[in-house]
Amino acid sequence: MVYDLIILGAGAGGLTASIYSSRYKLNHLVFGEKPGGQCVDAHIIENYPGFKSITGMELTEKFVDHAQSYGIKIITESIGLIKKIDGPEESTFEVASKSGQSYQARSLILAMGARHRALNVPGETDYLGRGVSYCATCDAPLYKGKTVAIVGGGDSAVTAALLLAEYATKVYLIHRRNDFKAEPVWLEKMRATANIEEVLGNEIVKILGTGSRIKSGMTQEEIASSQTPLPRRQAGRNDGNGERKMVGAVELKEAHRGDKTLAVDGVFVEVGLIPAASLAVALGVTVTPDGYVETTADSRTNIAGVFAAGDMCRIPGTAPLRQIITSAAAGALAAASAYSYLTKKAPAPSWG
Amino acid sequence: MVYDLIILGAGAGGLTASIYSSRYKLNHLVFGEKPGGQCVDAHIIENYPGFKSITGMELTEKFVDHAQSYGIKIITESIGLIKKIDGPEESTFEVASKSGQSYQARSLILAMGARHRALNVPGETDYLGRGVSYCATCDAPLYKGKTVAIVGGGDSAVTAALLLAEYATKVYLIHRRNDFKAEPVWLEKMRATANIEEVLGNEIVKILGTGSRIKSGMTQEEIASSQTPLPRRQAGRNDGNGERKMVGAVELKEAHRGDKTLAVDGVFVEVGLIPAASLAVALGVTVTPDGYVETTADSRTNIAGVFAAGDMCRIPGTAPLRQIITSAAAGALAAASAYSYLTKKAPAPSWG
Repeated sequence: MVYDLIILGAGAGGLTASIYSSRYKLNHLVFGEKPGGQCVDAHIIENYPGFKSITGMELTEKFVDHAQSYGIKIITESIGLIKKIDGPEESTFEVASKSGQSYQARSLILAMGARHRALNVPGETDYLGRGVSYCATCDAPLYKGKTVAIVGGGDSAVTAALLLAEYATKVYLIHRRNDFKAEPVWLEKMRATANIEEVLGNEIVKILGTGSRIKSGMTQEEIASSQTPLPRRQAGRNDGNGERKMVGAVELKEAHRGDKTLAVDGVFVEVGLIPAASLAVALGVTVTPDGYVETTADSRTNIAGVFAAGDMCRIPGTAPLRQIITSAAAGALAAASAYSYLTKKAPAPSWG
Repeated sequence: MVYDLIILGAGAGGLTASIYSSRYKLNHLVFGEKPGGQCVDAHIIENYPGFKSITGMELTEKFVDHAQSYGIKIITESIGLIKKIDGPEESTFEVASKSGQSYQARSLILAMGARHRALNVPGETDYLGRGVSYCATCDAPLYKGKTVAIVGGGDSAVTAALLLAEYATKVYLIHRRNDFKAEPVWLEKMRATANIEEVLGNEIVKILGTGSRIKSGMTQEEIASSQTPLPRRQAGRNDGNGERKMVGAVELKEAHRGDKTLAVDGVFVEVGLIPAASLAVALGVTVTPDGYVETTADSRTNIAGVFAAGDMCRIPGTAPLRQIITSAAAGALAAASAYSYLTKKAPAPSWG
């Protein structure tokens, strides 16, 4: 069978697109490996209108529940391929899951979101899940009484620092620039938090491990001599002596308080996003120089029948605001544009 | 004193702009004669993600409460004048209430909304939210298995009829002229839909209510005699016998199939919107030929320091979707753009 629509992604954009598509009676499927997308990782959300304060997990449950109330099933398999099949009048699209199951639809809404950017420094992948984390919400409670470093200068870095400060004894906020782009309300809060220390104009160049041999206050030389570099690809495994190596310190580009090494138990990387656009690129969708899917304000792409919403998109000439509310609105617009396309293959009329 | 920002309007766009502005620490005022805007009139809202079903009143309360949690006061006076005062470096804006109180700010967010053009027939306001609706996208799913009348001849009327036909058993499309101005493709689709019946060259002159006393097939006399006209201003209240009066029929100007009365459960009025743009026009903001404030996708207008969001706006070249979720997102974008303008980080950086 050929569906009206397949929605790829089940974050705020994809789930809102599904709610609207259900209401437009579009026979559709939703693919989403991780329902909620980045929303689910958010410790606390205070700027989605209608909820003064809610966890990402709770808001995700509300979105999923809302979308599923129309009988929509979310397929949590990952997608292997998206293909356009040209027809005499209109194209059809084929979506194949990695397990080999394939589905066809007359239109697509791309809403695969974005993933966190890595620091790309030695030790980062080795210690992933062993002190290196990209999700403060998920891992903060593991750092009770410990010392951590957060890397980044935006809202996600500063809010991660605030969250960690509730658990850790000491939080370093390391940012390569000398000022933050985070919201002033967060900065003010952060600066009123005694156990957060700013480390500005500085970068982590290496993440070092340790057993129990490293202690806060050791010199760089003492730490270096305590290190046995992990062989590559041993991440997550034992060190051969039956002991799991964990993050013990970070090496900085510039000295901080006279020392290029900070002894930390954890490193939270909050330095930005990479849009999950590779399948879209392969489909022939136009992307911006920095890799985001180019859309119009009503969520159309360059391919007729293909729409896009959320963190993977950018509207040329406008500043993106990557928020739950904006992703959700773009999802609604994508559904309206898809409905219009499916009904008469022309720009949508004035809905209201 | 000169505020950072004055937000004109306290609907979904204005209130979301206020939430974001508070988080950006902008010292601002909100004017709103009718907090909630059109949202507050919505009988039931099922397409604001996160709330499967909520009344317009309840959602408005949540938005107002959310905005006020940052200490913002909503001034419910109406606005008499908005003036731009040119300065050497940037303009200042003066907003005067009708009572004569005046306020100054470095920037404005226009979010005064639009109102639906009404039929101006007896019963229309009495049965608002009780069978009379101005939003098919919002309310169509409430009419499963029912009979409805749509009034209008443009795209919004014809698409409303198509959408209602997916839910209702029978849809009358009533238009005062003998031909539609909707696009032919929509008309073709509409004419291929079996349960839509055109009622041309005809008008509704009165909307009649009913309890359980009216049935499809009753004559006009039977219906009229079953009617107890509602006193004005009783809309939304009980009928005195503890029973909520709902729409039961419409009275036509000309007989249709020999009868001037059509028994219907709902009346969708789709005869156009009127953007509340007169003060914006006086300020010098560019409007579209149909009177909407022209904005970019990030809610900027042609005047530096003036931003706009919600139902009073149109983004040239894109189909508007006038929904709570899209107005709220535009409000968030307007606040981000205003913050960017005020902190001189123009063009706006990448938020998120």
